[in-house]
Amino acid sequence: MAEAKQIMPDVLSIARSVQPIMLKSNNPQLQLPGEERKFVLVIMGTYYHTPTYGRLDVLRDVVLVVQEGKIVRIANGHEETEVQEEFGLAEVRQLKAGQYFMPGFIDTHVHAPQYQFTGTGTDVPLMEWLRKYTFPAECSFQDLEAARHRYSLLVKRFLANGTTTAMYYGSLHLQPNLVLVDSIERLGQRAVVGKVNMDRLSADDYIEDTADGLRDAEEFVTYTLGKKCSRIQPCITPRFIPTCTPELMKGLAEIAQKYGCHIQSHISECCGEVNCVREMHPEYASDAAVFEEMGLLTNRTVMAHGTLLSDDDIRHLARRGTAVSHCPLSNFFLGDAFFKVNHALSLGLKVGLGTDVAGGISPSMLSAQRMAVVNSRCIRAHKLAVSGGTTVTPEMEKDVITFKEALWLATVGGAQALDLADVVGTFEVGKDFDALLVDTNLSGTSGPFDVFEGEDDDQRFEKFINLGDDRNLIEVYVQGVCVKRGDEFLLDGSNVSVKATEDDSDRIMSAPTPVEPEAAYLDLAHRADSSDEAASVDVGAAAEQSEPPTKRSRF
Amino acid sequence: MAEAKQIMPDVLSIARSVQPIMLKSNNPQLQLPGEERKFVLVIMGTYYHTPTYGRLDVLRDVVLVVQEGKIVRIANGHEETEVQEEFGLAEVRQLKAGQYFMPGFIDTHVHAPQYQFTGTGTDVPLMEWLRKYTFPAECSFQDLEAARHRYSLLVKRFLANGTTTAMYYGSLHLQPNLVLVDSIERLGQRAVVGKVNMDRLSADDYIEDTADGLRDAEEFVTYTLGKKCSRIQPCITPRFIPTCTPELMKGLAEIAQKYGCHIQSHISECCGEVNCVREMHPEYASDAAVFEEMGLLTNRTVMAHGTLLSDDDIRHLARRGTAVSHCPLSNFFLGDAFFKVNHALSLGLKVGLGTDVAGGISPSMLSAQRMAVVNSRCIRAHKLAVSGGTTVTPEMEKDVITFKEALWLATVGGAQALDLADVVGTFEVGKDFDALLVDTNLSGTSGPFDVFEGEDDDQRFEKFINLGDDRNLIEVYVQGVCVKRGDEFLLDGSNVSVKATEDDSDRIMSAPTPVEPEAAYLDLAHRADSSDEAASVDVGAAAEQSEPPTKRSRF
Repeated sequence: MAEAKQIMPDVLSIARSVQPIMLKSNNPQLQLPGEERKFVLVIMGTYYHTPTYGRLDVLRDVVLVVQEGKIVRIANGHEETEVQEEFGLAEVRQLKAGQYFMPGFIDTHVHAPQYQFTGTGTDVPLMEWLRKYTFPAECSFQDLEAARHRYSLLVKRFLANGTTTAMYYGSLHLQPNLVLVDSIERLGQRAVVGKVNMDRLSADDYIEDTADGLRDAEEFVTYTLGKKCSRIQPCITPRFIPTCTPELMKGLAEIAQKYGCHIQSHISECCGEVNCVREMHPEYASDAAVFEEMGLLTNRTVMAHGTLLSDDDIRHLARRGTAVSHCPLSNFFLGDAFFKVNHALSLGLKVGLGTDVAGGISPSMLSAQRMAVVNSRCIRAHKLAVSGGTTVTPEMEKDVITFKEALWLATVGGAQALDLADVVGTFEVGKDFDALLVDTNLSGTSGPFDVFEGEDDDQRFEKFINLGDDRNLIEVYVQGVCVKRGDEFLLDGSNVSVKATEDDSDRIMSAPTPVEPEAAYLDLAHRADSSDEAASVDVGAAAEQSEPPTKRSRF
Repeated sequence: MAEAKQIMPDVLSIARSVQPIMLKSNNPQLQLPGEERKFVLVIMGTYYHTPTYGRLDVLRDVVLVVQEGKIVRIANGHEETEVQEEFGLAEVRQLKAGQYFMPGFIDTHVHAPQYQFTGTGTDVPLMEWLRKYTFPAECSFQDLEAARHRYSLLVKRFLANGTTTAMYYGSLHLQPNLVLVDSIERLGQRAVVGKVNMDRLSADDYIEDTADGLRDAEEFVTYTLGKKCSRIQPCITPRFIPTCTPELMKGLAEIAQKYGCHIQSHISECCGEVNCVREMHPEYASDAAVFEEMGLLTNRTVMAHGTLLSDDDIRHLARRGTAVSHCPLSNFFLGDAFFKVNHALSLGLKVGLGTDVAGGISPSMLSAQRMAVVNSRCIRAHKLAVSGGTTVTPEMEKDVITFKEALWLATVGGAQALDLADVVGTFEVGKDFDALLVDTNLSGTSGPFDVFEGEDDDQRFEKFINLGDDRNLIEVYVQGVCVKRGDEFLLDGSNVSVKATEDDSDRIMSAPTPVEPEAAYLDLAHRADSSDEAASVDVGAAAEQSEPPTKRSRF
């Protein structure tokens, strides 16, 4: 199995990833106290991003400097020599023609334990789909060895598809969620992760007592926070209103408040769901009203779908700073209605994009972007059909988005939704370097599309967005660290045993050992030191400060 | 360039492709007069297809025998020994677990010279899009060297994506269309191909006189028929009503009748187009009425889009045996309305599926199938929105199709539309073997999706349809010949010079040399004979009967 192979550390490939990162800085302002050597990544090339909704900006031929995971300088190409001197660099890496950096994708809605059946089970409506496919699949994650294997494949698949940040639903049971957090930590993804809570209207073997649910939710939060890994944040996750009693929802809101956590749930997703909620809670006018009463609408809340939200609901969510995760592909199958992105944004709502694996049948955020464009054009077609004529009015056009708006949703919109707008989403000084290196040069059928003579950078980039896939993503960076290059997951070779032991759970809960973001770099450097190829890189000082690799070996 | 590399014959790989094909048959019924040795392909494994709309049938563990390109026997696995004896076979090839054959895809609407800008130029409506992107791109194909290069990439890309049959629009000028036909012939695809005609409302530098257009159209037909290649059929192609005078359309209808040709055009595609036709031809109620009057609605006519067809129009097309090519992805961008597949079928219309490259931004028929499903679900969402409620009625559900119906459209529906229902689309005795070998075993990120323990064949196949791509298509067959295996196009190494010479056009028109389908096999066998790996295969008799390779060297 490739899986087994990838678990063994490939020191050489790790060294290769470190090589351009580890360089001595002469700038005292960029040195942390007690450290002389810095981890600097300097790449000259063309960077695409969307700081403004609807506009694709290009930083053409710039020199971008990353230090300790953060972008510290974006200089024009002609300033290359100055930058080299300032940072004491022997050389600056130059991207090839046809290669571009873009921000990593932010998927604001993923059900991690549903990944295994992604692409199947599209034959029934939501409420039946949960019972037929979802609950049994999620329940099976109590087998922690299976969970470890599947979550490793999940995180790898998402990283390979360019999803540097994901907002994950876990499953009901506590332990597999800890496995999920550890898989994310180990492979280097950024994530907001929640243990699912549900104490009513679930399957007999997939439900929890209210008190147990609240206890486990808090344990999950403290475990995740205990890691002190800035990449990973815990999330309070009442599945959706039908499966959560008011007591559970209120208790969860208190935990979220106590720890300042994110919250995620589903809102006004489809007819089956909203009709069910209306029956269960006739005293409330809408899902939004229920969530408001339970204290679950905060500025760190992300609600999935929202296709059946009224304008009043949207305005209320906007006032609370709550975001909606727009999941177009899933909405086509389970959602019953078109979510109007431009309209929601115009009412002040924060909107991110989500795959909603496995309600959405693709784990790719490129697919999600394409489906967001398609969804927007369907609103136009719907309005024209309602008009009964053949005249397209400006009013019909106003919901239409292009690949540029979709890319904004997949990056900046997601960052805003996850309260990470200061951290990721664009290339700006002070933000973390979460980025994808797109190669449009793949020849023949080794890549998913052809490029023709005379096509400029913008056309190539547009082809990638519309036709590209994971083959074009030749490097994936999170916090300035290359986590995937070619077919290799560079952090997968950590000293982490994948064998479960009987007392795993005790060890997990009794001694959460913090791993600082810096430590990840230092640990990476330490491993690289044993390679021939890393000979020219002085990592001694850095390695001395790193935590011993065994400290990360919780499993 | 990979392109240059692939032009050189790789004899070893060709030999590998021939190995299982060339075997002596002992069955006198299967011998053609004067031939002792037959070309037999025998593969035991699992075959998926959709003979019935909405049903996925599986031929599990069967032995399928192909002789001279046609399926001559489908036997149960336990009859393997009998089949071996009957056909005098030393061995039967066994597919691995997780590998399946399925019918090749039939794309009923492709604009060949638009391929180069596929995935870009999605910012304007149809009539503007034609002027801004399409006409300049098509016009540039007068550079025949460029045409040769681009059409080679086009046909390869489509074969790689599993499109074994395509209905192609060429461009206005005669010569590049001949290059297109030759590229298709050389690479082994099945196709219906037309020279575009347009004598009004076009660009100043991209338009023809009516008389010239009719002459060139007929020359194109005679050139293509002159090849006597059963895989390739010429097609009469009035672009669409706005760009064709009644005189041109009537003249083209006469040519189609004279040669029994296919006809293709666009019908009721979008508001801009239908409004334009209503203005130009106020005497006719609809596009369908215009085409009827011009004599262009036959049982070999395929009309693209049809999103704005009335029920009366659909019934009329159905009476004439005319098909519609449903192009969902293109319709989202340029089409303005949802085409209702189930409704059209219920009115007796023949419906195939098309990518409509480059109005459709993907050349993949897998993408087209997924978009057909999405389109069908949007009709449901549209109807629910019109109802203003949250109750989904059976009436709203009746337009919904699943991946099974979409697969039928991409295979059987396309075959019916192209009047090839007796030849391709399913695995049945008497039909040609146009097939894709799907491999769902690709490990890790070498493939586009993960397979998990316990997933059965049906789930794996469904994952391929919903998540798979060209990486999973490890072999592509047309008329029983493997035209692509892995990254190699096995017929690309023929003795065909790709260098243009000044007198190309004269040679093209003066001496069209027929190549029989049989000759293609024999030619292939001849080349294989020089390989070590082909040593065990006796191709002497076959090679003697083949036409000399130079006879195929028109370019």
